[in-house]
Amino acid sequence: MALKNDLFLRALRGEHVERPPVWMMRQAGRYLPDFMKLKAKYPFFERVQNPELATEITIMPIHQVGVDAAILFSDILVIPQAMGIDVQMIPGKGPVIPDPIRTGKAIEALNTADAAQHLDYVMKAIKLTKEALNDEVPLIGFAGSPWTLLCYAVEGGGSKDFSLAKSFCFQHPEWAHLLLTKITDITIDYLREKVKAGVDAVQIFDSWGGMLGPDDYKIFSQPYIERIVTALKDEAPVIVFGKGCWYALADYSKSGASALGVDWTLSPEMARKLSGGEITLQGNFDPSRLLAPIPEIERMALEMVKGFGYQKYIANLGHGILPHVPVDHAKAFVNTIKNLG
Amino acid sequence: MALKNDLFLRALRGEHVERPPVWMMRQAGRYLPDFMKLKAKYPFFERVQNPELATEITIMPIHQVGVDAAILFSDILVIPQAMGIDVQMIPGKGPVIPDPIRTGKAIEALNTADAAQHLDYVMKAIKLTKEALNDEVPLIGFAGSPWTLLCYAVEGGGSKDFSLAKSFCFQHPEWAHLLLTKITDITIDYLREKVKAGVDAVQIFDSWGGMLGPDDYKIFSQPYIERIVTALKDEAPVIVFGKGCWYALADYSKSGASALGVDWTLSPEMARKLSGGEITLQGNFDPSRLLAPIPEIERMALEMVKGFGYQKYIANLGHGILPHVPVDHAKAFVNTIKNLG
Repeated sequence: MALKNDLFLRALRGEHVERPPVWMMRQAGRYLPDFMKLKAKYPFFERVQNPELATEITIMPIHQVGVDAAILFSDILVIPQAMGIDVQMIPGKGPVIPDPIRTGKAIEALNTADAAQHLDYVMKAIKLTKEALNDEVPLIGFAGSPWTLLCYAVEGGGSKDFSLAKSFCFQHPEWAHLLLTKITDITIDYLREKVKAGVDAVQIFDSWGGMLGPDDYKIFSQPYIERIVTALKDEAPVIVFGKGCWYALADYSKSGASALGVDWTLSPEMARKLSGGEITLQGNFDPSRLLAPIPEIERMALEMVKGFGYQKYIANLGHGILPHVPVDHAKAFVNTIKNLG
Repeated sequence: MALKNDLFLRALRGEHVERPPVWMMRQAGRYLPDFMKLKAKYPFFERVQNPELATEITIMPIHQVGVDAAILFSDILVIPQAMGIDVQMIPGKGPVIPDPIRTGKAIEALNTADAAQHLDYVMKAIKLTKEALNDEVPLIGFAGSPWTLLCYAVEGGGSKDFSLAKSFCFQHPEWAHLLLTKITDITIDYLREKVKAGVDAVQIFDSWGGMLGPDDYKIFSQPYIERIVTALKDEAPVIVFGKGCWYALADYSKSGASALGVDWTLSPEMARKLSGGEITLQGNFDPSRLLAPIPEIERMALEMVKGFGYQKYIANLGHGILPHVPVDHAKAFVNTIKNLG
């Protein structure tokens, strides 16, 4: 069935668009008052694991803010969970892994055979969401990069430098690669299942890639993301977003990915230059700029589009939306892009 | 009196050196067992404010690790303190400003006239340290960038995104610029006094510059750092280190600074390219790499020097040393560089 609004998919294919499509990372949740109500009522992983709740949250920004694509409400840490790692979400603190993975034995013991089966609730949420969307806009599925998931699994939670995770990799590269390989295998299965269940595109989030220098990135992150892209690219368009990974844009532009996400520390011109000028780019409004006065948001959003150009471009933030952004401000950003059409 | 080891100053002047000089950011403290003993005994700001203690901590790594330059043990937050802002250092948490600065009135009330006089203890520590160093190696003085100090003063402490500080700037640019101007004026006075007291070079730490996109960096950080460089450069060599500020290297290479610090997310080749190839660079070993096995540290340190070249280069870490680095590992890094001579 044809989508009523396929701007996002056309931009991913590099086709001509009347105006750039727009969506916002973490749009499903966080800043929407209706989400806050569900947040107060249900713990984090219940919202993720209950297909009806996940669907309700996923479609909220479509009707309330009017973005051009939906992204499934879920979490990158469902993969470590499916591998048998206990992941808790502590309000105000973020993810906590009480028993971090720091030995070869612990890595060998991780479940890989039927991990994707543990994620059937995600597939149910995708099917329900597709029905609810009624072909209005495409649906994006996502996964964390293997490196980013290793960071959480080894560090035991968030960190300002992930020095435990990094030193684990420097001290035990063979264990690190075993863990990364296991995560990669499961992620490929998982994303394939998501595509079969109905997502129209997938995005890989390498949230902590930028913690690595360029040489170490080429060892511990990039090859695993490239394996995922290679495995998926003929089944759905793949977007690679590495926060702080500007040094990898040139390589990723040749990886088979349909688009690359860009954070706000790159000027649009520099992003085009580093990525070779041909591939579709997605980004890169500084999430803090959504706290500026609305006329300033409008001015800066237009400046951003001017920098990237209308074609081969998907307007987005440069990272996740902040929870305290007023809905009017988020709408002003989205409407500035939509008014270009 | 001539310094016995002036490698560091010669590298800053771009003169020929037999081997690159080496020192480590945050070398004065953190990972040294003798520092830990003093840390257990005296609260943070007592160590900073007591000239004898500051001297003792400053010279520790000279004798114990054998670096080519000393950096005064102090803190960038002594400037906000001298302006009348209450700054507390909470063990395990970092700096806390109980009454963050978020109004024009609060900024207008900040002390600027005699702020440098409140920092006489720093000048005493410099004089004592110079005596204790006995002309063995040069002494570096430092200050935080005005933007980085604004981040702490407005946010009220550390943050993963400094979104409060940034939204303050977007909402009230006139207040932000007033605060940045006040901090800049005091920092210039303060660094001048430090040079008079005996420091041989100064470094400006823009620890949170990389939180800003390139356009906002040009508005809220770069011009203030450039004012400091212009005011100081004829009195002492100035090093500018902006973490995550790779996009500003080209401009800073023309600022009058003697050297630019580089973090580990840039390859040496890219750092040379972005900075124009003429200015002395300092960096950029990933601090987490000091947790690798010693033979790996040695291999990676040599690779780093090969990338930067022997001349116009100061070996250092790409950010502060981690507290849990074994002293042997820090020594292995330093000795790898020293064995090149």
